[in-house]
Amino acid sequence: MGKFILRVNMSDLSVKKEDVPEKYRLLGGRVLTSTVVADEVNPACHPLGPNNKIVFAPGIVTGTNAPSSGRLSVGAKSPLTGTIKEANAGGIPAQKLARLGIHALIVEGEPKEKGKFFVLKLAQDTAILEEAGELAGKGMYDSNEIIWKKYGEGVGVIGIGPAGEMLMCNAGVSCNDPENGPGRYAGRGGLGAVMGSKGLKAIIIDQKGTGDVVIANRDLFKQGQQKLAKALQEHAVTGQALPAYGTAVLVNILNEAGGLPTRNFSSGRFEGAGKISGEVINEWSKTRGGKVGHACHPGCVIKCSNVVTNPDGSYHCSPVEYETAWSLGANCGIDNMDDVAEMNRICNDVGLDTIEAGATLGVAMEAGILSFGDGKKAIELLKEVGQGTPMGRIIGNGAAFTGRAMGVTRVPVVKGQAMPAYDPRAVKGIGVTYATSTMGADHTAGYTVATEILSVGGKADPLDAAEKGALAKGFQSATIFIDSAGYCLFIAFAILDIPEGFQGMLDTVNGVLGTEYTADDFNRLGAEWLAVERKFNEAAGFTNKDDRLPEFMYYEKLPPHNQVFDVDDEVLDSVHS
Amino acid sequence: MGKFILRVNMSDLSVKKEDVPEKYRLLGGRVLTSTVVADEVNPACHPLGPNNKIVFAPGIVTGTNAPSSGRLSVGAKSPLTGTIKEANAGGIPAQKLARLGIHALIVEGEPKEKGKFFVLKLAQDTAILEEAGELAGKGMYDSNEIIWKKYGEGVGVIGIGPAGEMLMCNAGVSCNDPENGPGRYAGRGGLGAVMGSKGLKAIIIDQKGTGDVVIANRDLFKQGQQKLAKALQEHAVTGQALPAYGTAVLVNILNEAGGLPTRNFSSGRFEGAGKISGEVINEWSKTRGGKVGHACHPGCVIKCSNVVTNPDGSYHCSPVEYETAWSLGANCGIDNMDDVAEMNRICNDVGLDTIEAGATLGVAMEAGILSFGDGKKAIELLKEVGQGTPMGRIIGNGAAFTGRAMGVTRVPVVKGQAMPAYDPRAVKGIGVTYATSTMGADHTAGYTVATEILSVGGKADPLDAAEKGALAKGFQSATIFIDSAGYCLFIAFAILDIPEGFQGMLDTVNGVLGTEYTADDFNRLGAEWLAVERKFNEAAGFTNKDDRLPEFMYYEKLPPHNQVFDVDDEVLDSVHS
Repeated sequence: MGKFILRVNMSDLSVKKEDVPEKYRLLGGRVLTSTVVADEVNPACHPLGPNNKIVFAPGIVTGTNAPSSGRLSVGAKSPLTGTIKEANAGGIPAQKLARLGIHALIVEGEPKEKGKFFVLKLAQDTAILEEAGELAGKGMYDSNEIIWKKYGEGVGVIGIGPAGEMLMCNAGVSCNDPENGPGRYAGRGGLGAVMGSKGLKAIIIDQKGTGDVVIANRDLFKQGQQKLAKALQEHAVTGQALPAYGTAVLVNILNEAGGLPTRNFSSGRFEGAGKISGEVINEWSKTRGGKVGHACHPGCVIKCSNVVTNPDGSYHCSPVEYETAWSLGANCGIDNMDDVAEMNRICNDVGLDTIEAGATLGVAMEAGILSFGDGKKAIELLKEVGQGTPMGRIIGNGAAFTGRAMGVTRVPVVKGQAMPAYDPRAVKGIGVTYATSTMGADHTAGYTVATEILSVGGKADPLDAAEKGALAKGFQSATIFIDSAGYCLFIAFAILDIPEGFQGMLDTVNGVLGTEYTADDFNRLGAEWLAVERKFNEAAGFTNKDDRLPEFMYYEKLPPHNQVFDVDDEVLDSVHS
Repeated sequence: MGKFILRVNMSDLSVKKEDVPEKYRLLGGRVLTSTVVADEVNPACHPLGPNNKIVFAPGIVTGTNAPSSGRLSVGAKSPLTGTIKEANAGGIPAQKLARLGIHALIVEGEPKEKGKFFVLKLAQDTAILEEAGELAGKGMYDSNEIIWKKYGEGVGVIGIGPAGEMLMCNAGVSCNDPENGPGRYAGRGGLGAVMGSKGLKAIIIDQKGTGDVVIANRDLFKQGQQKLAKALQEHAVTGQALPAYGTAVLVNILNEAGGLPTRNFSSGRFEGAGKISGEVINEWSKTRGGKVGHACHPGCVIKCSNVVTNPDGSYHCSPVEYETAWSLGANCGIDNMDDVAEMNRICNDVGLDTIEAGATLGVAMEAGILSFGDGKKAIELLKEVGQGTPMGRIIGNGAAFTGRAMGVTRVPVVKGQAMPAYDPRAVKGIGVTYATSTMGADHTAGYTVATEILSVGGKADPLDAAEKGALAKGFQSATIFIDSAGYCLFIAFAILDIPEGFQGMLDTVNGVLGTEYTADDFNRLGAEWLAVERKFNEAAGFTNKDDRLPEFMYYEKLPPHNQVFDVDDEVLDSVHS
């Protein structure tokens, strides 16, 4: 079936099917959402006003059986950072969107009646807006359950929790997983608030009756699919570590490396790391129920997701990722995995990005609102977000916001977005990515940690400032290609180390598009696509002065290595020059 | 006596007297604070961290008997805007600082123990830091009273209230008036939080035993002083309107012009304007006690200040200015002058800029936290600021912050600072100043209202977008000269319309400095000095993209003239080119 653009205008509640412009035909995922935002959104607009737009796009190969390719890109001008933003997630909606033929879904305008919410129901040949009814105000667990009951088991759900409805800048966009858990989040940058500002509670996707997505060269595609799957299975990270322990396998590794930000980025080592690690999740999956090796969408061969249970073996939260175990654990000085899982569950329910939430709690702890290590009080604070109390509104707006509310100066953000689980004073390449990414601090924008810590794609000393500009540049341009293709970023491990895996990835893209992209095109297109995002940011007023880490990281030494961030500004400026 | 720089380091609690560098010898007031900040502060620093500095400087002629010249400039990198910031105030401290020979007072570092407060006692030949003791946590009324009791009646007091101690970004710096009221505020831009971050509760200035300030050419100075005083007395605005009605004489005038921002900038006309006007203050001064024609410092011939009483005739608040009657009145839909005076008093006590406070309440009303017109609830909210509740911390951080906390898009700010009492859609020249000022939205940075509304210095149609770039440019460069000289901005009315007044002003400056500045120098220096501020802002990451009004003003028409802000971006960009 043919592809089309679906345009939903919340001002007049119209839904229109449009042809895919030639310019967008070969694009998908991140480059597509970013190009639409760059083309249609005034960079000076208020991110929560009528002139911002939120764009959803499955990746180029999403909806095929290419392995680990079920990613959904969500894009808009970010209310958290003021930059262009793309956040992507797994779960089941993206493949279904692709199978409905939706190249991109563009939501624009704002409802006439503020605070009124709608759902968008998508199915073969239909796209209907209807009032959200009982869904409005509901958490994501209840929302997903109600939606499966009302609209059919197995439908894809893209939704926002109360944080998004209340337009909080740390609101994410939830995608449901195969078991209908809401924990697959396009979390970063407050895109849930943009969705909320459009009055859109959920997008419900029923793929019944659809066929396969169009593949221009099936033979080439199939070759590529097999090569890539083989590489993913062979690589130690994607074939062994991630399926067995999940992403939280990194807790002990980063702690060893002295780069696990602890107690609001005041140390790089946490004495309780072992209690919140992937090893614990693995152990629990054997001793008290739960699961590792869980796929977040059909066709994933990495299967890094998990289910964490309560002490009595009942379902508690899925997934608990490395970033979350770190942010709600080590960064808050909390070493109780049940508390971490509960905080994670609340974030999933209220609709919050866990990285930003944990960084925010760390800042609140620094301010003395609660003590480091106080999991019970942290749980209460996260609940307040969903209740919209004044304190909840502070916390729900993120780390930079909370820092300002409380007069805290040790606030680990770039462009208003909280840093993920790698202290840039101990892992300097990722600091370059944080500083120079088009998205604010974001490890997934250019994961140099692969090389610096995991020795994937070569080796680099994490503490050495040298050569980190080129490293971050390469990772950033590779990443936007992967994000646009619709692949999970985790394929990077295998395609960096295994040439056949890289070729396989390229073959699948060429197979779907009918193109003949080479490794050179991979690099060229990555750089060109980043430039689209960069240009939007420049028009929004960003300069190289914004491509810097927070001041304290230049003068506060991080134990145990007692290093500051010593990458020169010129190196940071070289990344996009 | 000779002049010197006093440098206070809060990290080691040292106080040092330094010679005035030649570069600073002919500078004073705003250009001096801005030059010191530009020279010594890293534009990328955290405004509330150890590397920001707060600088206090009396104007060039301050401390002489030049009329209406008792202004104190306070400068730093602003935590509210991120730009360089100068705010100035009347009251009695500036003249005393000048008479002690203090060319500039620079406060740097931060106390080792966070949350510990000190006072700086300045007297002839002594400068001593001591613990603030019982003053810590006190409101400004109590603080001033305690200080006069302990350190002597008549001492100058530069201080911060609880908002500054709690590092809130709408904290101002209070200067006491001759009756020791704390209502003369260097209010804008959160400089009170910078002072708070230095652990400095108050600066106490005893001028006992000091002589006159140095005047290089006494004859010329005296001529100038007489010419200027005569012009001030002759001009209708400074000689009649301001002494009789105070600045609040503008309430009815702007309301007539359809430019009085009402109910969070949703209309330019307020049906209750007559009840919160200067005419009411004048009437009350006759019928229930209080005062108009009150000088905020010795030697002011304009005497625009006032004392507003309670219904029983007891002292309530001094002064109630136009900006405050508007911000806490019309902008909140409140037409009860006693409520306005009470809100004003709380702001003075807690240590808040009233412009930002009223704009913030307007945004909170827009968000539904309280209703427009609800003065009693507004009073409670302002009290919460002093208590540091979560809601108080939201309100205390200003309009942009509150807008984000609550997801409001109609937020009248530029560079994070709230607009004063002139809607730029109805008074377009002042919109150009708001957009392009080095300080964020600030009427005192280039008061084109004089020409557009009061027909001073020529005439210009306030609704016409044409020629407003040049008008704002001229006003901005004249203003920085006046601010640097130490004159109250209100002398602008007289010196714009009366050539002898202008020459008199110039003669006093030349008399003090021994210079031979001409009208050309007045313009040249103004432009050069603005460039110093502009350069700091550029290094802090600001571009022409920041020189814009909030988006809603480009698409929401303002009643009654139903105009949007239609000054072209190119015109805005021309102001500093």
